[in-house]
Amino acid sequence: MTAVETRSGPLDEAELAGLDAYWRASNYLAVGQIYLMANPLLREPLAAEQVKPRLLGHWGTTPGLNFCYTHLNRIIRQREQQMIFLCGPGHGGPAVVAQSYLEGTYSELMPHIGRDEAGLAALFRQFSFPGGIPSHAAPEVPGSIHEGGELGYVLSHAHGAAFDNPDLVVAAVVGDGEAETGPLATGWHGNKFLNPATDGAVLPILHLNGYKIDNPTILARIPDHELVALLNGYGWHAHLVAGDDPATMHQLMAATLDVVFDELATIRHDARNGAGIERPAWPMIVLRTPKGWTGPVEVDGKQVEGSYRAHQVPIPNARTDEKHRQQLERWLLSYRPEELFDGEGRLRGDIAELAPRGQIRMSASPHANGGLLLRELRLPDFRDHALPVPAPATTTAESTRVLGGWLRDVIAANPDNFRLFGPDETASNRLSAVYETTDKNWQAALYPSDDRLGPAGRVVEVLSEHQCQGFLEGYLLTGRHGLFDCYEAFIHIVDSMFNQHAKWLKTTLSIPWRQPVSSLNYLLSSHVWRQDHNGFSHQDPGFIDHVVNKKAEVIRVYLPPDANTLLSTMDHCLRSRHYVNVVVAGKQPQLQYLTMDEAIAHCTRGVGIWDWASNDDGDPDVVLACAGDVPTLETLAAAALLREHLPDLAVRVVNVVDLMRLQDEHEHPHGMSETEFDALFTRSAPIIFAYHGYPTLIHRLTYRRENHANLHVRGYKENGTTTTPFDMVMLNDLDRFHLVMDVIDRVPSLRSRCAGLRQRMADARLAARAYTREHGLDDPAISGWTWPYGEARAE
Amino acid sequence: MTAVETRSGPLDEAELAGLDAYWRASNYLAVGQIYLMANPLLREPLAAEQVKPRLLGHWGTTPGLNFCYTHLNRIIRQREQQMIFLCGPGHGGPAVVAQSYLEGTYSELMPHIGRDEAGLAALFRQFSFPGGIPSHAAPEVPGSIHEGGELGYVLSHAHGAAFDNPDLVVAAVVGDGEAETGPLATGWHGNKFLNPATDGAVLPILHLNGYKIDNPTILARIPDHELVALLNGYGWHAHLVAGDDPATMHQLMAATLDVVFDELATIRHDARNGAGIERPAWPMIVLRTPKGWTGPVEVDGKQVEGSYRAHQVPIPNARTDEKHRQQLERWLLSYRPEELFDGEGRLRGDIAELAPRGQIRMSASPHANGGLLLRELRLPDFRDHALPVPAPATTTAESTRVLGGWLRDVIAANPDNFRLFGPDETASNRLSAVYETTDKNWQAALYPSDDRLGPAGRVVEVLSEHQCQGFLEGYLLTGRHGLFDCYEAFIHIVDSMFNQHAKWLKTTLSIPWRQPVSSLNYLLSSHVWRQDHNGFSHQDPGFIDHVVNKKAEVIRVYLPPDANTLLSTMDHCLRSRHYVNVVVAGKQPQLQYLTMDEAIAHCTRGVGIWDWASNDDGDPDVVLACAGDVPTLETLAAAALLREHLPDLAVRVVNVVDLMRLQDEHEHPHGMSETEFDALFTRSAPIIFAYHGYPTLIHRLTYRRENHANLHVRGYKENGTTTTPFDMVMLNDLDRFHLVMDVIDRVPSLRSRCAGLRQRMADARLAARAYTREHGLDDPAISGWTWPYGEARAE
Repeated sequence: MTAVETRSGPLDEAELAGLDAYWRASNYLAVGQIYLMANPLLREPLAAEQVKPRLLGHWGTTPGLNFCYTHLNRIIRQREQQMIFLCGPGHGGPAVVAQSYLEGTYSELMPHIGRDEAGLAALFRQFSFPGGIPSHAAPEVPGSIHEGGELGYVLSHAHGAAFDNPDLVVAAVVGDGEAETGPLATGWHGNKFLNPATDGAVLPILHLNGYKIDNPTILARIPDHELVALLNGYGWHAHLVAGDDPATMHQLMAATLDVVFDELATIRHDARNGAGIERPAWPMIVLRTPKGWTGPVEVDGKQVEGSYRAHQVPIPNARTDEKHRQQLERWLLSYRPEELFDGEGRLRGDIAELAPRGQIRMSASPHANGGLLLRELRLPDFRDHALPVPAPATTTAESTRVLGGWLRDVIAANPDNFRLFGPDETASNRLSAVYETTDKNWQAALYPSDDRLGPAGRVVEVLSEHQCQGFLEGYLLTGRHGLFDCYEAFIHIVDSMFNQHAKWLKTTLSIPWRQPVSSLNYLLSSHVWRQDHNGFSHQDPGFIDHVVNKKAEVIRVYLPPDANTLLSTMDHCLRSRHYVNVVVAGKQPQLQYLTMDEAIAHCTRGVGIWDWASNDDGDPDVVLACAGDVPTLETLAAAALLREHLPDLAVRVVNVVDLMRLQDEHEHPHGMSETEFDALFTRSAPIIFAYHGYPTLIHRLTYRRENHANLHVRGYKENGTTTTPFDMVMLNDLDRFHLVMDVIDRVPSLRSRCAGLRQRMADARLAARAYTREHGLDDPAISGWTWPYGEARAE
Repeated sequence: MTAVETRSGPLDEAELAGLDAYWRASNYLAVGQIYLMANPLLREPLAAEQVKPRLLGHWGTTPGLNFCYTHLNRIIRQREQQMIFLCGPGHGGPAVVAQSYLEGTYSELMPHIGRDEAGLAALFRQFSFPGGIPSHAAPEVPGSIHEGGELGYVLSHAHGAAFDNPDLVVAAVVGDGEAETGPLATGWHGNKFLNPATDGAVLPILHLNGYKIDNPTILARIPDHELVALLNGYGWHAHLVAGDDPATMHQLMAATLDVVFDELATIRHDARNGAGIERPAWPMIVLRTPKGWTGPVEVDGKQVEGSYRAHQVPIPNARTDEKHRQQLERWLLSYRPEELFDGEGRLRGDIAELAPRGQIRMSASPHANGGLLLRELRLPDFRDHALPVPAPATTTAESTRVLGGWLRDVIAANPDNFRLFGPDETASNRLSAVYETTDKNWQAALYPSDDRLGPAGRVVEVLSEHQCQGFLEGYLLTGRHGLFDCYEAFIHIVDSMFNQHAKWLKTTLSIPWRQPVSSLNYLLSSHVWRQDHNGFSHQDPGFIDHVVNKKAEVIRVYLPPDANTLLSTMDHCLRSRHYVNVVVAGKQPQLQYLTMDEAIAHCTRGVGIWDWASNDDGDPDVVLACAGDVPTLETLAAAALLREHLPDLAVRVVNVVDLMRLQDEHEHPHGMSETEFDALFTRSAPIIFAYHGYPTLIHRLTYRRENHANLHVRGYKENGTTTTPFDMVMLNDLDRFHLVMDVIDRVPSLRSRCAGLRQRMADARLAARAYTREHGLDDPAISGWTWPYGEARAE
């Protein structure tokens, strides 16, 4: 840790005065946003009704954020540096809104917030006010790609933004509260995936202001030698900027940033001129300032500046208590607004000149409105990867392995615009064809024995779902494309990150200047039904349930049953914009059903009758519906059993790829009309629905349908263990034999006359289970089952 | 980092031979479990059919785990040290099962796995076999409180287990894959909450074997100086044990453990004799050994030992390929089983003697079967904290603040048996009365200005939901009690941890020797409806949806509408065993409805008609149902509007506290029968249900009910922002005016004749919104609303 210890520094008197004025202006605007409804320049004594009735804001983190931003502006101007600003701390809104306003961006994008007194009043009033803007660095804030409402992801987002952006510096302020979270604690390791030759830089600024809501923070209360060791251990070169005297701190920060950006320049130069092969120790800054710096020192006799009491609103009763109001007024005037704004409320010209110009302003960077930079993916034709399927359900393949071949070509065709992220599972998920064209990204030590590991790899694997998700979000929000492949059960690790991203997407839909970004695509493989050796802890299909709670406008869920439908689905997802696409597909060898043409047609409809598996002639006695690869297999096997044992029974098989088709058209853009639904599922025939996940989801999607009362769903009911595939479906009553029993139970005409068949099915279950317990394998007659009625297609 | 560098060491020849034999025995048993169906002692040449047909296991981590366990046994014997063993790496089952078997515990608890040749055969066969046991350190493994199927939580669990267990050492092996996860990365900071005077010790053993499934690990590939800095920075004193020669490594490990346990003894002694006031640098071990150590060096010409290829089954085709089978046989024989087991297959006596005895065996420790140690909480009478409610819905209070008073007394009455965990939100959630009796736990630096911060605090606050959850799980699984209070939206951060704990509870229900533990209790406050200044990122009521996917046997969800119902509910939860209890309750001032006697009666039923708010005389025209404090308020206000405008309409108000009552009695133990449900909700009247969370959950719980077709649910539909409470309910159509409009729309007799009233309600919404936009506040006529028909109770 290098500390610049002199009071003197690189700033001459005018520069110092200018920086300080800019900082004061931003702090003034921040306090104004938190407190004022009117009288923004304090031209008259502050009156009660000019103070907001509900004071909702967070002062504590604000002056430090403004300090960082102001100083980064100096670097941007001096070096013409492309930079974006990620605000890790929660409730950083007052600072980043102020900065965006000072740079002019705010008024350019939102002309009703002009650069005059009326604009100032509107700026202040709207903050944390009904009909106004949130208190975080939310999507509404120009220049933001990171809201910071939920803490922990700023370093993951920052690294994702820096990937393949060689000229960009991503400044990422890390709050010391946020620093206690798990995701942030591993986020520091992002530097093991940052290639100085082809990626941008991440500049973490760990802002130690000492306190969270109600407690000190860990990193602010460990000794300096531990803090330095920790950050160096993470692979960063830490520079300390600590103090509370503004003039001294300006010199320190300026001097430190000069050093830091020289270090960054050296790292880039070395890496891009063949000199740097070792992973560099990237510079970072530890900024230690009082919480609520420059705010009230004491309120009502209690310390505020430098304590947790500065966290939110330091002077709580400014509207109702005259003494409080006077203290607020003194605080605002301490920034000397008369030196900052002219008679019309415009920022004075000499101060305004300190802001960068045009797109180099952090608030106006297109990198922070990634849709502006979005380049179409070059997608190789997925039809070229079609798996030949000579007859339905008679040949097997690993569907994700087929997808891997296409993904290899996607990666090759988009060498700086697409990445694949995964927690060490890309090969396990059978996507290893991608390694024919690229490496696993790795900036740490390399050994001669290493396989497909290297600094330029397009596959980013780290055993942290949080990092994978955060990297991908940062990559997408800066205008690129990607896919996250994950074990199905463990995607729940990022439930809350998904929430925040889905909220970001939903909110940006109604912000006219935000351009759509590429969709966040999940491939969930190694799913609940095929955790043969991982067992119960790895069995959870509930992410779909979680996802569909979010706004229908941004949510899509697909369960392609075989390789060709998976290819068609993923092509569709990678072309899409501004969605979260969840694709669930197994990696194990499985029966293949559809030719590519059939697959495309089926995926286009999203749901359809499989005529080759049906014998209903338009009027079924029962509908066997299925969604997901394993339920589809069991459904077909059940259909075959029914055709064998009850040839007169009219059975219709319906397969669902696009789960949201099941919903009402008024609930989801993909939803089916009542007429369409009834045409497929009938208005009165019993429906036995074999579903991949928790059965209640199907009810939840269909409860308004006319025929819902006849819908009987089988799925995962949280019975699991280490066992064979068929034992797993039996444990959950999703197996072919049980589906036949369900048909007998639900079709009134069968109930009495099929007691014998029902018993034979129950016996078959017992026999299958006994076989498995004895041999440790499924009966080959079951595991090797194929559709007995298929005919080879003429292809 | 201290490295013992000499080949010599503390072990004499006999000790060395003994330790090595014990280790070989455990490795032999591990390989046997992965591979063998029969012939466990290799008395005859290994035949194909004696090898399991599906080889499902993970060798890579196993020898290192066995090495640690064997050496810890030496310390346990020498020092009579109470210790438990937490196996962080996934798939550690072969090791911990082997150890438990060698100690005799396995056969004591599962007599069919005897200590003879037949027992060995059964032990081998059951592993990762249908009907057998999982491959992790699952609940089925004696001595385990940490499954390790999902990675990242071993240090959080370890610290939770050590809290208030002053004589216990919790050895926690951290896999280097696991070490990349966020929760583990912050888990190291657990030492800031470990009090050497009153807590036990955590001994982390970071096991660097270099590889995950398909990649090297970060911590194994950073230079030693970074690794040492990182661990020291986390506040640990790291000791290095590195190598691959067994004899050398035995000496190194023994010498290091001697030093480590001397350090632990000194820390304890100092802290317990007044000498230690500084947070100590707790010792830990970095164990660097080859992945798959002692396994095959090469298979089919490719390196296995020391590479990622050792991760799972190193010799893949041992059943079908004779060369592979011979290599497996050589590998097994390399452990010299004839020296380890006698003619009957019993572990030889001199080796068996190296195991500790009785409860001091890690596999038999009651700390790892916490129900055995469970002491009843001393619960002060919650009735003493009753809030006077002179008339329903006419007075206000902060419900969680009332709860705080009782929790204070719970903490005081259980000074070493109950803890409150929270991510810096306990005061924010209005539970600050607890600080009248205790501190916030803090072992880092203290400043004179600190408030209620100290090393003995019973409230553990860290800004990591992962740590809070992990600490609490570790605390509960070792036989204590606790409560986790959290912002509702951010409990999703631990969705996957909840999954794993719920699975653990479900599985242990069918393990006879596992005793029930105390329930995991969540108090979710700062909920979706009252995020007035936090906005959209803080608005998510979906944890309930997530929770109810798990087994009904272990899941309970409560939505107490006021202070007295919250007290009664929480008393019930803290008394309960082996559940996950989710309690959602607001912290803001709100109307109070029930006296304590009424609250107890209402909570006992879980759902009931509120007669004082109804005017239906047993035959309602409409049922207004509600669950959650804010929906209850809006429902009552709607009932009042209906009584005012449509006095002839028979309105029934039903409040639901225990959400699972809505389900069918066959689906959930708390579920209502059809008769009960119909008695409350009728078989034909329209039901307007105002629900706290996503509306679909109510449909999902009730779709089988006769009257479901008439059920119309209002709730959160993912419309949120920073705004006033009433604006929030309006945004989601949950407000009183909209509920009245819903009644008009759903009660056929009203539709035509109430168009005027419907329009007035719509106008009232517009007026309310306009008021809010202008004043930044809700109209006081709305925010100050009380039930106009109440009469004071005689109390």
